[in-house]
Amino acid sequence: MTEASNDSSIPQDAQRREDLQRITALVQHSLNNPLAALLAEAQLLGMETLDPEHRAAVDRMTELVRRLITLVRDLDSKVSDRTFPR
Amino acid sequence: MTEASNDSSIPQDAQRREDLQRITALVQHSLNNPLAALLAEAQLLGMETLDPEHRAAVDRMTELVRRLITLVRDLDSKVSDRTFPR
Repeated sequence: MTEASNDSSIPQDAQRREDLQRITALVQHSLNNPLAALLAEAQLLGMETLDPEHRAAVDRMTELVRRLITLVRDLDSKVSDRTFPR
Repeated sequence: MTEASNDSSIPQDAQRREDLQRITALVQHSLNNPLAALLAEAQLLGMETLDPEHRAAVDRMTELVRRLITLVRDLDSKVSDRTFPR
């Protein structure tokens, strides 16, 4: 550390970082199971013989679930970047 | 307020509450659109003529998406309760 203009900000930042980590972990923990169940359902349905337009709908749903899983997985860095801009 | 044992904790709590609100808003903003798109796909597919087991799969997916939407909507209070236990 090359400067410390405000000593009291250091423990406060530590507290905020701990909050952020705890919150993102809580969010991820809440959403991961239903998202995994949803992906499994979509993938199993996608293995069935389906009408072409039904298959297209299942493919779009599978893609949306994958996007949600990626969003939830990457929440840590997104939240951290917004809170502590570099 | 009937007591204030530590004055410095008040602005810090305000900062933490602001963080929590900002983070939950960010999470909700990120997830709401794909979840709404997913619910629309599942509901439209559920209106089609489907084999019974395919319909059952679509019904389970619709239910999982509704659960996710509720989880995301209620994140504010969940996160707040964990951070500031009553």
